[in-house]
Amino acid sequence: MINFSTDQPIAINLNQVEVALSEIRNDPMSGWLELPDDYNCAEFSAIKKAAEQIRGDSKFLVCIGIGGSYLGHRAIIEALGQKSSTRVLYAGNSLSPRSLDKLFNEIGDADFSVNIISKSGTTTEPAIAFRFFKEKLLKKYGREGTAKRIYATTDANKGALHGEAIQEGYTRFVVPDNIGGRYSVLTAVGLLPLTVAGINVDALLTGAKSEKDDYAKESNLGNIPAVQYATMRATLLQQKYDTEILATFEPDLQYIEEWWKQLFGESEGKNHQGIFPASVIYTTDLHSLGQYLQEGRRNIFETVLTVEHPGLVDFAVPTLPGADVDGLKYLEDRMLGDINNIAREATITAHRTGGIPVSEITMPGLSESSLGALIYFFEYSCALSAKLSGVNPFDQPGVEAYKNNMFHLLGKPGF
Amino acid sequence: MINFSTDQPIAINLNQVEVALSEIRNDPMSGWLELPDDYNCAEFSAIKKAAEQIRGDSKFLVCIGIGGSYLGHRAIIEALGQKSSTRVLYAGNSLSPRSLDKLFNEIGDADFSVNIISKSGTTTEPAIAFRFFKEKLLKKYGREGTAKRIYATTDANKGALHGEAIQEGYTRFVVPDNIGGRYSVLTAVGLLPLTVAGINVDALLTGAKSEKDDYAKESNLGNIPAVQYATMRATLLQQKYDTEILATFEPDLQYIEEWWKQLFGESEGKNHQGIFPASVIYTTDLHSLGQYLQEGRRNIFETVLTVEHPGLVDFAVPTLPGADVDGLKYLEDRMLGDINNIAREATITAHRTGGIPVSEITMPGLSESSLGALIYFFEYSCALSAKLSGVNPFDQPGVEAYKNNMFHLLGKPGF
Repeated sequence: MINFSTDQPIAINLNQVEVALSEIRNDPMSGWLELPDDYNCAEFSAIKKAAEQIRGDSKFLVCIGIGGSYLGHRAIIEALGQKSSTRVLYAGNSLSPRSLDKLFNEIGDADFSVNIISKSGTTTEPAIAFRFFKEKLLKKYGREGTAKRIYATTDANKGALHGEAIQEGYTRFVVPDNIGGRYSVLTAVGLLPLTVAGINVDALLTGAKSEKDDYAKESNLGNIPAVQYATMRATLLQQKYDTEILATFEPDLQYIEEWWKQLFGESEGKNHQGIFPASVIYTTDLHSLGQYLQEGRRNIFETVLTVEHPGLVDFAVPTLPGADVDGLKYLEDRMLGDINNIAREATITAHRTGGIPVSEITMPGLSESSLGALIYFFEYSCALSAKLSGVNPFDQPGVEAYKNNMFHLLGKPGF
Repeated sequence: MINFSTDQPIAINLNQVEVALSEIRNDPMSGWLELPDDYNCAEFSAIKKAAEQIRGDSKFLVCIGIGGSYLGHRAIIEALGQKSSTRVLYAGNSLSPRSLDKLFNEIGDADFSVNIISKSGTTTEPAIAFRFFKEKLLKKYGREGTAKRIYATTDANKGALHGEAIQEGYTRFVVPDNIGGRYSVLTAVGLLPLTVAGINVDALLTGAKSEKDDYAKESNLGNIPAVQYATMRATLLQQKYDTEILATFEPDLQYIEEWWKQLFGESEGKNHQGIFPASVIYTTDLHSLGQYLQEGRRNIFETVLTVEHPGLVDFAVPTLPGADVDGLKYLEDRMLGDINNIAREATITAHRTGGIPVSEITMPGLSESSLGALIYFFEYSCALSAKLSGVNPFDQPGVEAYKNNMFHLLGKPGF
């Protein structure tokens, strides 16, 4: 189970939490809540089959998506590393020609397939990228070959991409109606790219399920770590701590932090309220934002995401003959991982002393099952935290504003 | 010249600015201010000679440094791309065994050299990494060969690394006494890695110098863009806008944003005050933090870092035969770069409408000279902005807190 500890007193209003959880359970967009139990087994098998096909015939899988159709699987792949000879690449998450050019150069003449991930098929960035890569596929493989190399993760019944996929005969996977983008990583949205990258998705889902089962077993809601984290956030916000820093000492978790920022920022940033989510990677950022955190404005609280056993590799500090020129003799033969752990302890103490409330979320390892559990922990606590703040955890009305302006400026018919 | 525009009224108190600038000029740590004119030509030649040597005998240059000894050159290299067959890698900026393992795997059995960048030589992270790579060098090249492959950028006269470099005969470059880490990118700290990566450092320095000269020519301080940006920040902070988002529509500028966060956060985050610096990359983050920015707490102001001509490559949206299945027919044959520009305009309008003060910093291109100018612009405006807020732009007393705790926990003699 994901562990949560904090230096803050947490006064949990059990009635309020119970009401909020009941509202979440009854929300039509809470499909993610039961997902680890309810996953569609037929589709799961089809995903594995498709992944096998892709790994057999492609050096690259270009995943085209943005926001919730991008960040979740990238976060897991960056955390665990690509374990397959077919590399997953990411397109359609910006409009930069430089980024597209880099992708084209990386692919070169190699064989590739495309996974277009879009509920509607008309979101501008991925739709444009899809045109570029479809054109490349058509030139290389012809119409029939192209259709075999496009995998469309989209709405089950409607939408532009769904229609095209039916017409052209693309392999299709489903973005469920009852799960929003930022909660969708454990659906086909994430599972196809993850399987292609060699991630063990069974273990990922088992991890999420085990976290879910642990919560169900708990007779006192106040003992559930995700409830504690959510309640603490709401309490701190009332005390004017309005910026949260998610910190990690493991650079491979950078995109988990990016995923977390979307999850919480998009769920809570409404009605001119909400905790502003920011992130740092230590110890790098101790030599950057560290000064600000130690002595800047005191409206910040910090949540450290700790991996108890990052595993696989570690290194002992080499001994050097002669005088102690670099002042490191006292560290000789110590393991680098232990020194990193001590840096974490030291930082937590320093920031608490400096007046920052610091909490710690601990995952057992950097593994599929730990990440599955972490995803469930964050989704659960995010939905609850938003509810406790009185906002809808599942909508994102503000995302339309720039799109409407853009469509108008681009001369899109009807705008 | 870097251009600055804003929707905010800027009331510049010229006397106050004049006093602040005069204090900056007289500060012993303001060497960066005259650097584009005063650069040590002998050392500049030595850097180019060393870079030539490295490019001749090494597939990799491992740059070991953290904070200001890391972020500046990485920012420029990521922005412009590595243009050399010798690749620059970065070590010593974390304590993660996983990160070190990745570096070892990337280097494999290839020839490499090391640039250790540390004023003292005893900062924990780089000092540890230096031991690991020195051990690797010694095994591969012996003591004499190792000495030829280590380039030490350090204090001119004292310190552990200086002493070791003299004793072992490493090639040495200087971290000047009158320039702090976060202002040091245009010294040897940045110039050696940049030259090895194939960056045109002459153009970089010329760009900085031209920005400097433009400021000197201006008879009215209030017309200097960097003065406007600094004043606007101070004014907004007084109005309780206490979080600044630096935004870019060019993903290659990600590390420029990281460098900016250190520069401003470390300069201003003191005495429980200062603007909190955060960053986003669009359009990716419009589908993530975009919701928060559009409708969240109204304490945020946004600064968009625009590249007027990102250059080199662009692509026209492909035409597709048949019906308008993806709704993109109205974009056919439009250039992707133009669409990216329109997305920027649309975002600025949307955020202003949503109640966020939005300014724009425009650099002419993504080139060495533009980046040189941008660096000077930000250093100048940062020092002035900190001065106007009443804090010392050049110290970082809070960075010691976690180090002291860490030394104590690690059992370092004397702690």
